[in-house]
Amino acid sequence: MFNKKKIFSKILLAVLIIALIATNSIIGTKGSTKIFKSTVAEAAEEKVPKYVFYFIGDGLGAAQRQIAEYFLQEKTKDKSAKLLINQLPIAGINTTYSANSLITDSAAAGTALATGHKTNNGMISKLPDGTNVKTLIEAAEEKGMATGIATTTRLTHATPAVFASHNESRSNENEIAVDFLNSNVEFFAGGGARHFLPQGWIDKMPSMNGSKRKDNRNLMREFANRGYKVFYGEEQSNRFRRYSPKGQEKVFAAFTLSHLPYEIDRIHKTSNQVPSLAEITKKGIEVLSKYPNGFFFMIEGGRIDHACHANDAVGAIYDVLAFDDAVKEAYKFYKEHPDETLIVVVGDHETGGMGLGFAKNYYLKLNELLDVKASVGDVLTKKYDGNREAYFKYIAENFGLDNLTEKEKAEIIKAMDLADNKAKYDISEYGPSYYGPVAIATTHIISERANIEWTTFAHSGTSIPMSAVGVGAEKFTGFKDNTEIAKTLANIMGFELSK
Amino acid sequence: MFNKKKIFSKILLAVLIIALIATNSIIGTKGSTKIFKSTVAEAAEEKVPKYVFYFIGDGLGAAQRQIAEYFLQEKTKDKSAKLLINQLPIAGINTTYSANSLITDSAAAGTALATGHKTNNGMISKLPDGTNVKTLIEAAEEKGMATGIATTTRLTHATPAVFASHNESRSNENEIAVDFLNSNVEFFAGGGARHFLPQGWIDKMPSMNGSKRKDNRNLMREFANRGYKVFYGEEQSNRFRRYSPKGQEKVFAAFTLSHLPYEIDRIHKTSNQVPSLAEITKKGIEVLSKYPNGFFFMIEGGRIDHACHANDAVGAIYDVLAFDDAVKEAYKFYKEHPDETLIVVVGDHETGGMGLGFAKNYYLKLNELLDVKASVGDVLTKKYDGNREAYFKYIAENFGLDNLTEKEKAEIIKAMDLADNKAKYDISEYGPSYYGPVAIATTHIISERANIEWTTFAHSGTSIPMSAVGVGAEKFTGFKDNTEIAKTLANIMGFELSK
Repeated sequence: MFNKKKIFSKILLAVLIIALIATNSIIGTKGSTKIFKSTVAEAAEEKVPKYVFYFIGDGLGAAQRQIAEYFLQEKTKDKSAKLLINQLPIAGINTTYSANSLITDSAAAGTALATGHKTNNGMISKLPDGTNVKTLIEAAEEKGMATGIATTTRLTHATPAVFASHNESRSNENEIAVDFLNSNVEFFAGGGARHFLPQGWIDKMPSMNGSKRKDNRNLMREFANRGYKVFYGEEQSNRFRRYSPKGQEKVFAAFTLSHLPYEIDRIHKTSNQVPSLAEITKKGIEVLSKYPNGFFFMIEGGRIDHACHANDAVGAIYDVLAFDDAVKEAYKFYKEHPDETLIVVVGDHETGGMGLGFAKNYYLKLNELLDVKASVGDVLTKKYDGNREAYFKYIAENFGLDNLTEKEKAEIIKAMDLADNKAKYDISEYGPSYYGPVAIATTHIISERANIEWTTFAHSGTSIPMSAVGVGAEKFTGFKDNTEIAKTLANIMGFELSK
Repeated sequence: MFNKKKIFSKILLAVLIIALIATNSIIGTKGSTKIFKSTVAEAAEEKVPKYVFYFIGDGLGAAQRQIAEYFLQEKTKDKSAKLLINQLPIAGINTTYSANSLITDSAAAGTALATGHKTNNGMISKLPDGTNVKTLIEAAEEKGMATGIATTTRLTHATPAVFASHNESRSNENEIAVDFLNSNVEFFAGGGARHFLPQGWIDKMPSMNGSKRKDNRNLMREFANRGYKVFYGEEQSNRFRRYSPKGQEKVFAAFTLSHLPYEIDRIHKTSNQVPSLAEITKKGIEVLSKYPNGFFFMIEGGRIDHACHANDAVGAIYDVLAFDDAVKEAYKFYKEHPDETLIVVVGDHETGGMGLGFAKNYYLKLNELLDVKASVGDVLTKKYDGNREAYFKYIAENFGLDNLTEKEKAEIIKAMDLADNKAKYDISEYGPSYYGPVAIATTHIISERANIEWTTFAHSGTSIPMSAVGVGAEKFTGFKDNTEIAKTLANIMGFELSK
């Protein structure tokens, strides 16, 4: 399919050259080499996609892309099952280091992907000296394009933040929320309502009780006053689903106070299930494609990273699959507009040092992961309250651990002893205290049963895959620093980023 | 540089089309679309490289490619230093699974890369049912091209073996050696003399005393009888260096009984230093380019994998750098023959689950690796003989560990206790017994100081990067199974592989 397209584009180029020669009477006097050079260069430069999708998988390394595909094959019993992101015709490799570390955080990585500039970990679209740098979304707005930001995290979290705000610290999410209000971005959807609701907010919708703002501003209302259709709270999920833009409309949607649920938890929710990233992407396309000058749409799979921080293989897998489903929505649009659409799929860094191999074994046992029904980060970490029997019953029923070996059981009991005594422990073994040693001991058992292991609870410094399809996609092969991804996009689009 | 080349190739295509039109009098009668289609297709099909380099980094995953580059930057104090393999204009991602496991061994991965067919772990260019499948080298020989096989391992080891032999087991290295004799491959260089020397072989060259053959065949002599220039033993390294082919000559060189030394050990050797992989590659080019019909040259960086099996970060880094230097030799040749050369650089799988991140830290400390002067796999594993003081002195002087913390020292002493008592231990912590727990405890301390960690002593199932430059290189982007790499090469070259 893709080869045909390539040949077709070569044919097109050839036809174009001939047509230009036929209508150009001065060919004989200028010398053929020169005229061909400029003609070909011009033809190449003219290809500007009208619709750009910029997918960012937070924590999406090679292992995460691969294990999700193998899991899908195991689950569907179809050995030929593949992720779409692993089938796009163009692939390349990215470096991810930040200005002050070979291991980036998501703020610095996002700044590089959004602006083409390296900055220090923690900074949001500012240089290390504090200077603001223009983002691709800002450049798209300048050009009169519609823009969108969608994510599974809080909208004010690092990766979405870097596209439409500038701040010395990713922690200043209330300030980031105000920047969003002034950004003119046409479509926002994700979590993080707590930074858009006023101080002390109590709502009739249970999911919306709580604000992290320090002031009394109701940014939700301010968005509405500026003409945005506002959706908030998981209770309004179906209202969002039913919504259809009648013309050039703007949307602000924040379905949860903090992050959207992990996909593995979302699909097991029986009421007020928030939209999937694919549903959000589809709605974003509906909204943005009403605008006449094309769109630039950033969509983040933000919780792949969170799952990997918790060394939660299954949580990560489900979020990669949900991310892939979102890319499928963009791909459907691409198939309808193949000559006007570019889809670029990148990660910002790898998380967890996820290794698809453990001990000395030459196998992966994906079937060990099939019975897991909940996330580690949001669910399992809250399950141990001192009642050991209840915990073992819970993980037997929800994490497939109804057959613990003596050694595995001893590992969990050791972690329970630490937890009960609030003992300090080696972070290289059990991770940061907010997960608790019991959940981490448990998730490691699940990983190791599948022959997966992790090297860190933080990010890693390895290079990561990118992939692309559509107009200009061929420029995303080879080895690119994360800053070069943004510069390449700007170059294709004719955007002027900050020098 | 590469963009210019791309534009140039487009110009070339355009000029070619015009030339064909100018000389084709029937254009008016055939209809322009059709003739352009076939002309362009033919033009595209006509691009067959005369010279092909197929570089295989054994165990070369994304982390290995990246950490070697960061180490180079640290060592040279040049933050812009890059590996050539990480700069080639085309990159892609490969899956590596074998017919019977999601984690391949090098025999099955090599068979896929050499023949385009999946097989079971351990098998050499045979299908799981035992059927032989044609290799790229065999196909090249059929076409009258010259061929070469170079490696840093034993020549009869899995990756080189799959290109010119067929066997149900990679362990049958004596049989593989006989297959090589009958292969007509014009250039062999690497290690593994012990499988080419007769039973009970005692040589005046100390490095050559020992044979693993079960028969009395002297394959070295048989190679010589068939017209090969034979080099054997590290004592003949300089003879090899001085050698220059006068015409169409054949070469068989095996410098060591088993594998060539790790690069980190090779460079510290003061006499009879065997040639580097770059020197071998350069010599191979000299030999093979004397032949009129082009060449197909497979060059393996085989001990990256071995270092990673031993969780030896520095050993792996030096071997990646040596591999990159070998690619540079091919690249020089490519620059002299840009329209006739294709260089493809792949891995066969990742080894070690090398994670460039540990615990919860957002940094890499490459300076911690600068003082390491020897390999773990060949040197450090042999250093602990029960004398604890001598061991601590040795690692202080040769592995930069002159400042062990109490915790680090305790870890090594714990391993010494295990070693002294020949105790059984958890392989997930200390690896297979042939490394010994003391060396593994030590190498893990070095890795962790740099904030590197490993998940396995075996291979991992992640996807890995490939890169390419030259005629047809653009076909090596996107996501390719390892079998597709071989098929793509065959397709470019017009080789017929086994169905």
